[in-house]
Amino acid sequence: MRTVELTRDTVRLIDQRRLPAELVVMECRNYQEVGEAIRTLAVRGAPAIGVAAAGGLALAARALADQPAERFWQGLEEAAAALRATRPTAVNLFWAIERVVRYAAEQAGRPPREVAEAIYNLAQQMAEEDVATNRRMAEWGEPLIADGAGILTHCNTGSLATVDWGTALGVIRLAHERGKRIHVYVDETRPVLQGARLTAWECVQYGIPATLITDNMAAHLMRLGKIQICFVGADRIAANGDTANKIGTYGVAVLAKEHGIPFYVVAPTSTVDLSIASGDEIQIEERNHDEVTHIGGVRIAPEGVGVANPAFDITPAKYVTGIVTEAGIVYPPFQVNLQRALRRG
Amino acid sequence: MRTVELTRDTVRLIDQRRLPAELVVMECRNYQEVGEAIRTLAVRGAPAIGVAAAGGLALAARALADQPAERFWQGLEEAAAALRATRPTAVNLFWAIERVVRYAAEQAGRPPREVAEAIYNLAQQMAEEDVATNRRMAEWGEPLIADGAGILTHCNTGSLATVDWGTALGVIRLAHERGKRIHVYVDETRPVLQGARLTAWECVQYGIPATLITDNMAAHLMRLGKIQICFVGADRIAANGDTANKIGTYGVAVLAKEHGIPFYVVAPTSTVDLSIASGDEIQIEERNHDEVTHIGGVRIAPEGVGVANPAFDITPAKYVTGIVTEAGIVYPPFQVNLQRALRRG
Repeated sequence: MRTVELTRDTVRLIDQRRLPAELVVMECRNYQEVGEAIRTLAVRGAPAIGVAAAGGLALAARALADQPAERFWQGLEEAAAALRATRPTAVNLFWAIERVVRYAAEQAGRPPREVAEAIYNLAQQMAEEDVATNRRMAEWGEPLIADGAGILTHCNTGSLATVDWGTALGVIRLAHERGKRIHVYVDETRPVLQGARLTAWECVQYGIPATLITDNMAAHLMRLGKIQICFVGADRIAANGDTANKIGTYGVAVLAKEHGIPFYVVAPTSTVDLSIASGDEIQIEERNHDEVTHIGGVRIAPEGVGVANPAFDITPAKYVTGIVTEAGIVYPPFQVNLQRALRRG
Repeated sequence: MRTVELTRDTVRLIDQRRLPAELVVMECRNYQEVGEAIRTLAVRGAPAIGVAAAGGLALAARALADQPAERFWQGLEEAAAALRATRPTAVNLFWAIERVVRYAAEQAGRPPREVAEAIYNLAQQMAEEDVATNRRMAEWGEPLIADGAGILTHCNTGSLATVDWGTALGVIRLAHERGKRIHVYVDETRPVLQGARLTAWECVQYGIPATLITDNMAAHLMRLGKIQICFVGADRIAANGDTANKIGTYGVAVLAKEHGIPFYVVAPTSTVDLSIASGDEIQIEERNHDEVTHIGGVRIAPEGVGVANPAFDITPAKYVTGIVTEAGIVYPPFQVNLQRALRRG
């Protein structure tokens, strides 16, 4: 099944909090449940939460379809506001919500029931587009991988981070399917362990040779010559190429530079936010400290110590070799070339 | 109490596997139990395992004291061999065992009972020396810390890694006791979480302001200007200054260099191994994969994925600003200056 599936009555999600122990599908029956699923990381990954939010708006519109127009539009705006408030960093969430809201507004004269149907169809279309976009990124990125390459990846950027197929892990998966003898080193990605729980699980499913490592082992493996290329995803890319992604990405990028290893970001053009000039303007989500002090419900740190838990960091553009988008690979200068890609994308 | 305490009948250890949940003292009654405590990380930290091993030899000698001389010396060598085999990387273990064995050999003509007593006295002396050495390192290192500094440390290098006081954390602790307004960022130090479990616990005990972070947050905090200096310990230092220390240390060193942050190693001269030319010759312990795939008994990774678990990495000397020893701070060129320090130490 897909990570995010939209029906007329539900948004069906693989509950990623329960992987790899069990594969459970949860059904969200209204936009509030979708918002809660995004907030609690039942669904995560910038592309996946964008489509899930679009599905949430479709549920909200359907629930309001028999209301008078004024109530319909007011309710739709409330749902959009609630979904926007779930997570601050990944721009795909805002991009998806704005796309639905703008599309609905274009049909302001039609009866609510017809607008609701149109929103549902758009959300379905966005889900299909996500898969197609991922496949195009994989086609662009796959030739970057040499036969025999050791590949480092961080967090989860596979099927589970998207509707299906994946971004950075999608590139890696295509290289594997095309018979390249690759080996993937999977950063476990503390604190939420998306690498250990999700990427390792996906690699096992696909039969991709993979070694799970703690985040702090990457430097050692680079020094030993085990890693030839790095691929990561992105939650927001500024106009100058500065990239917000899962905490730890910036460290990988610095290490890659120091060892002369190419460092690629794989993200759809919907991740690029031209409204912000640089990464300094990107809001970084600070999450609950329990994610750091507890693992699997077990307390690992003493009471009384301070905790930091930024969910993302910023990788300055100078550390990024290239950005693989569905419109091609964007190389520096990103300031110019990202805008060109967006016109093509 | 001290982390390692020697009595005539026991080696008493704080069981570090059970911190921070509970402070439990375990009593080892023979060298086999001491070896098991070292192997299972009940006691860890290069200086602490050195003194624990010396205590283990004292127990072995005492148990053999009524045996004929031949059996005594044979049994002592068996104990030394068993203790050497517990962990391969930290040289302090071998240094401590060799010191005891050599000292005993000098008294080969005396009755076993007297040799056993002499070994016990030497082990006690080594425990006292460890504390004194740590205090001297703290005195040398403390002036490196500016008032108001943010300090990054990795793994545990405090009282729990030594007989008492600590190496890198000992330097930090002295700055705090002298009234400097410091803030310590504690790398949790996966996989065994010595930072989260032990260093955070020590900071809470001493009232040192501290923030626990996952290892992959260090780069982000450096970029934000939160960290002015790094202090780490060492398990073995080659003649050229290359330093083996807890996995993740090398990554911190690279990040520090990239951000222009001084990176200091704090270690007694007994950690320097002039018999090896460079870090490439240091054997790196590969530990059980369960340390990566399970946390607190909870499985976090899927079955079927490969795992790497090197317990240490090598930081090439070019990333090390200076090495704080009990004989002073050693600066490059380490090849020359480490030998000078060893003559003073």
